[in-house]
This record gives sequence, C-alpha cells and structure tokens, in this order.
Amino acid sequence: MAEKVSGGSKGKPIRCRGAVCRRPSEPLVIEEIIVAPPMPHEVRIRIIYTSLCHSDLLFWKIKDFAAAMFPRILGHEAIGVVESVGEDVNEVSEGDTVIPTFMADCGECGDCKSPKSNLCSKLPFKSSHFMPRYETSRFTDLNGEAIYHFLYVSSFSEYTVVDIAHVTKIDSGIPLTKAAGLLGCGVSTGVGAAWRTANVEPGSTVAIFGLGSIGLAVAEGARLCGATRIIGVDVNEDKFEVGKKFGLTDFVKAANSENKSASEVIIEMTDGGADYCFECVGMASVVQEAYACCRKGWGKTIVLGVDKPGSQVTISSRDILTTGKSLIGVLFGGLKPKSDIPTLLNRYINKELQLDEFVTHEVPFEDINKAFDLLIEGKCLRCVICMNDQ
Amino acid sequence: MAEKVSGGSKGKPIRCRGAVCRRPSEPLVIEEIIVAPPMPHEVRIRIIYTSLCHSDLLFWKIKDFAAAMFPRILGHEAIGVVESVGEDVNEVSEGDTVIPTFMADCGECGDCKSPKSNLCSKLPFKSSHFMPRYETSRFTDLNGEAIYHFLYVSSFSEYTVVDIAHVTKIDSGIPLTKAAGLLGCGVSTGVGAAWRTANVEPGSTVAIFGLGSIGLAVAEGARLCGATRIIGVDVNEDKFEVGKKFGLTDFVKAANSENKSASEVIIEMTDGGADYCFECVGMASVVQEAYACCRKGWGKTIVLGVDKPGSQVTISSRDILTTGKSLIGVLFGGLKPKSDIPTLLNRYINKELQLDEFVTHEVPFEDINKAFDLLIEGKCLRCVICMNDQ
Ligand SMILES: [Zn+2]
Ligand SMILES: [Zn+2]
Ligand SMILES: [Zn+2]
Ligand SMILES: [Zn+2]
Repeated sequence: MAEKVSGGSKGKPIRCRGAVCRRPSEPLVIEEIIVAPPMPHEVRIRIIYTSLCHSDLLFWKIKDFAAAMFPRILGHEAIGVVESVGEDVNEVSEGDTVIPTFMADCGECGDCKSPKSNLCSKLPFKSSHFMPRYETSRFTDLNGEAIYHFLYVSSFSEYTVVDIAHVTKIDSGIPLTKAAGLLGCGVSTGVGAAWRTANVEPGSTVAIFGLGSIGLAVAEGARLCGATRIIGVDVNEDKFEVGKKFGLTDFVKAANSENKSASEVIIEMTDGGADYCFECVGMASVVQEAYACCRKGWGKTIVLGVDKPGSQVTISSRDILTTGKSLIGVLFGGLKPKSDIPTLLNRYINKELQLDEFVTHEVPFEDINKAFDLLIEGKCLRCVICMNDQ
Repeated sequence: MAEKVSGGSKGKPIRCRGAVCRRPSEPLVIEEIIVAPPMPHEVRIRIIYTSLCHSDLLFWKIKDFAAAMFPRILGHEAIGVVESVGEDVNEVSEGDTVIPTFMADCGECGDCKSPKSNLCSKLPFKSSHFMPRYETSRFTDLNGEAIYHFLYVSSFSEYTVVDIAHVTKIDSGIPLTKAAGLLGCGVSTGVGAAWRTANVEPGSTVAIFGLGSIGLAVAEGARLCGATRIIGVDVNEDKFEVGKKFGLTDFVKAANSENKSASEVIIEMTDGGADYCFECVGMASVVQEAYACCRKGWGKTIVLGVDKPGSQVTISSRDILTTGKSLIGVLFGGLKPKSDIPTLLNRYINKELQLDEFVTHEVPFEDINKAFDLLIEGKCLRCVICMNDQ
C-alpha cells in the first residue's frame, strides 16, 4: 500500500486496508477501503500503532442502542504520522508525528481557554459517527457505501482522517514508540484523573475500584503524585501482582465471600476512608461504594467508568449534607490534550511515567481480532496493533 | 432570677426560666427549670440573645422520628456570657462573651487539625439529646424529670450548659449585638458555603435555590467574594426585593406556570449554567435542579439544605461522567467555628459583612412562641429573642 500512497497522494483518495466492524460482536473484517482527502480543518494520518480500549469493545458489542452504527471503523488510541492536511490547518504539516484523541481542544472556546475545563464547547463530545464539523464520513468501502467513524479517531485503519482540534502534535525529537499512543486515551484518563482532577496530595491514601488499564493508570498517577497508600479493588486477585509495579500497596477483593463490602474493608484499613476514591468500573453501585469509603471532611470520589446508558447513581441526602465529601466525574482525566499529552510524554521520556509497562501484547494488523480476544479474556492491559511497513 | 445567681452560683444548680418544648408542634412552655453546674470540659452560659432557625422548627414539629425527644429545650443560635466553667476548661472564663455552636471544634483531632475539614471526629455531629461527652442532661424540671438538650446548645433558656468544644470565645472589645448570635448557625452556614466551601471567584455567576436566611447569607457571602451575578430562585417573588440588599441581581420563580424549569431558565440566562449552585431548600429534587444548571466543565453544586430522613438524590451516571461538575455537601458552611466565627465577626465590625440586616424582628423571651409564628408564616428572616434583665 505504501507505494500507492507515497509521492502525491495529497488531495486524492487513498486506497488502503481498514478493519471494518460490519456487524456487532462479529470479528472485524480487514478489507480495502477508500479514505477521502481531508476537508478544511482536517488532517489525514497514517496510523503507525494503535491499541484496543474498552470503549472499542463496548461499541463493538452494542446492539440495541442508538449509537450502534455499522459498518464502522473502531479504534481511538493511536499514534501516527500526518500524510496530508486540509485547508486552514497550520498547526501540523506532512510528516509530523501526532496523537489523535476523542476529546477536542479547539483552543478558542470558553472551555478551552479556561484552566478549569477540558470540555471543548465548540466541538463538544458526543456519540457521533461522523466528522465533527461536517457530519459526513471520509471512509467508503469498495461498493461505495459509507463506513462510519468512531470517537472522531477510527484508528483501526492504515489511514484515517481526524479534525485538527482532535490532533496533538508531538515534538519531532521524541521517538515514536509502541506505548506513546496509549496517551491518546486510557493511560491519560487514569493518570490525569489522579493528577489534574483529584490533584492527589503527597502522603495521601487512594482507593481504586477496577484494576483494568485505566485503574492501573490511576495508580501510576497517584504514585507520581506521591500517594503513600494505593489500594486496589477488583474481583480478580491476580490484578494485585500486576498492580504492584504501578504503585499498588494494598488489595481488596470485591464481592468476596465474607460479609463485608469493599467499602467497609477500606474504611477499617484506613481508619475512616481513603482521601481519594476512583471509580474505574462503570457501575452505579460501584460509584456508591467508592463514595461510601471516601474520607469524611475532605474525601473526593472521582468517576471515570463508563456506565450503560440510563443508569443512575443514588446517594442519600443526609450523606451528601453531613459528610463534606465531593463527587466529580471526568472525561480524559480532566486533561487538555494539546497541552497535557506533551507534558505526560516528557515525563515518560524522562522515565518518570511508566508507559511501556502497560503494553502487555502486540499483534500485526492482520491479527487485530486477537486483540479483542485478549481484552475480553482479561489477559492483557493493552495490546498494541502494529500497522505494516514499519 | 439574676439575683439568685449573682455571687456564688458557681458549682451550684441554677434555677431559672427555660422555654420547654413538651410536645411536638405545641407552643413552648416557659417554666422554671434547674440547670446543673458544668461538668469537666463544660461551660455554663447565660444567654443574652438567641434566635430561631429552621432546624428548631424542624425538630419542634417532628413526631415519628427517632430524634423526636421530649421534653426538650430547643435553640442553637445565640450569644451569651460565661457564668461558670467546669474542670479542665482553660479557654474561657467567667464573664467572657461566647457564641455556642452545634458544630464542635476540639482542636485536637485529625479533622480539627486539617485545614480541609470542619467535621470534628472526636465529638462528631449527630442528632443527640445529651451533652456530647457524658450522654446525660444538665436540665431538669421542678418535678425532677430530665429535659433533653438540642444540638449541643439549647439556647431557649436563661442558662444553658455547653461543651467547651462547642464554644467560641469573642474578643472582649467586640460589642455584644443582637445580630452577632446569628453567626452561631444560619448566617455562618450561608456565608461559609460561598466563601470556604465553594471558594467563589470574583466575576463568577452564582445561583441560589431557596431564599430563606441561609440562601440570603449565601448571597451575602458570594457578594463579599466578588461574584458579579447572583441569581435567586424561590417560589415567593417577594424574596427578590429582600434579596437585593444582599447582592441578588436576578430572580427566577421556581415552580412557575410556564413550561420551563428553573434550571432551564438559568441555563438560558447564563448561556450554559452558573459557576456555583447552592441548594438551600433541603429537597432532593432541588439538588437535582441545581446540579442540572451548574456550568459543565467546572460547575460546583453545594448542598446546604437539610432534607427529611431517608431522602435520596439521583443523578444520571452519564451526567456525572461527562459534565465535569462536582457535587458537595457541607455543614456550617465548611467553617471551623473557633477560627472562622471571629474572622466573620471582624468583617461585620468593619462593616463589610451585613449581619444586622438579617434581624427583621425581635421579641422578649416571654413571647418566644411569636418567633415560631413569624418564621412559619415566612414573615421574618431572623427573629431575635431577647432574654430579660439586659
Ligand atoms: Zn474548545
Ligand atoms: Zn478509550
Ligand atoms: Zn440552625
Ligand atoms: Zn476535633
């Protein structure tokens, strides 16, 4: 494919391979697709490495929900190189290394300009299946049928088109590693939640509900912030060993056979509750558990997990009033992609932030369905999918 | 009564008048009672001015709840003078002016030492009807029957006994005004919520649900913090005129006849929501309204209202995750009584903080039941009850 593209693909459609999700829960089909040139404010990117995140899995399995749109190209955690840019794009140019993100950072709206928000109001996050500015797709199959986008990234393709507001440029001096793409979603979400949203103080106690990649990234973020006690909660005890390298100091088995809930165990072991509780499962009942065991007076409960549509969190009015605890939710860890991803990347290059440790598996693009199997079986943190010709 | 007391009452029971609540919802009965001397860590106080707060009303009306204990002496917003002190009390002595509070500030526990909490863990707040350290009463009627305490203060009596952790000493140079006692509960709760809990930033927009004294005290606090737009929400439109002197700039009628909810109106008029929303009604549905119209990205919803036991707040998981809003509850505005009441008192003396403006009525002790009528009819902000012999 590379031959077809090199030298003069700019402005023309590219024919390349994409992993198309044609029907929910069925293996992706690697097929030839057409990727249209970028429109104004858009960038066409050659994906180098991408990885599989739980949200891909969620939307791959979804059936009876309005957001279930097929055929679709999933994938939203990646690193790549700019192939060409559309009009009105000055921020990046051909050959630049970039990390696309599902979060926009337009740099112009009230939210992007405020240090307190990361929720761009010009290009707000929603469950769209098109480009953010045009409500159209850049992908078609060889029959001319449109293929839908996913989370404004769609990185399970050799080429993709992303809005410039969703693209973070990486310094040319920084090596393009398999792990760097993880900053496009999961690791940034977890590290950011501890760092930016909770602002974990040195010496504090943290409890993390759910020890998938995001939960472990919270642990990594809490470790970097100087937390002295980092308690992980999971149904799977094996996660404790994995978590130790990210700073976990204690483990509580969720849904254990004893009479005590995880929150009761944590209240006892911390003599009153954790200073910060992170919900990384995406279940209303777990949010309530986390809230229950955060320390009265100053405890913060931070919600990162994506729950199913329609679910609701219920908290007693008395608890809200009398405990002084706070409850906050956060997307992408509260990070602003264009300023915070380079900061985290630098901490990775300086060997402060662990990133390579999250990459437990890698497969070539052809074997992308293996990545799904591994994540479903709970056998991997992140499986990196390596595009060809690297 | 004063004669009986002066000169040598220390260590002896005092016979004086108390307004006893003998049965729920019935007028208080002013009768002779016996006030025992203070035990170690306790202070006996001659009440000079006290006022009626909604929590008095709530517990006066309560019937079928475990906290309904009669006979009882209500009242928890007051200013008085120390008559005598028990053993191990060094912080105040006879003749000192003091403000008792329902919140403890022991100064020794982890919470009292932390700048982040005002929820003393040595003497935690609960719906008790006794002294905090002894689980006994200091009041008896002339038949020898114990009379219960209320919120550790019981200021509807010429004399009361309060734990030293619940007593804030006032500088001797500060005049003992009718309004100063308001810092013992309502005004501090509202001002503190804006100042300490929300930390309202200059130039910001505030929405206040419920314009009783606490809601108006939030407005006063927000005004002091430099908020430029202060929106009041109430079912009673007359409150807008009252509220203007405390900084209200806009008014939204709750439960109006149009199709829009107050939150929808506020989202429109603020182009996205208020930076800070305060719930001062004590209804789960109003908490949800407040949360709905606080600004995505950084909005804070602060709950001050006391809801009925068992009520629950329900928020959609999706809203929590995707809006970046925070929800926090607070007692006594997040203030630490012993350090923050003197600060607010100084701002009152310096004519920055309005306090006299909250005192709309006053009655002599004999007419204490009129204060109940006035508050029930919604005709007063605060009615100060003046004890005799002043
Ligand atoms: Zn923006
Ligand atoms: Zn993701
Ligand atoms: Zn009160
Ligand atoms: Zn304390």
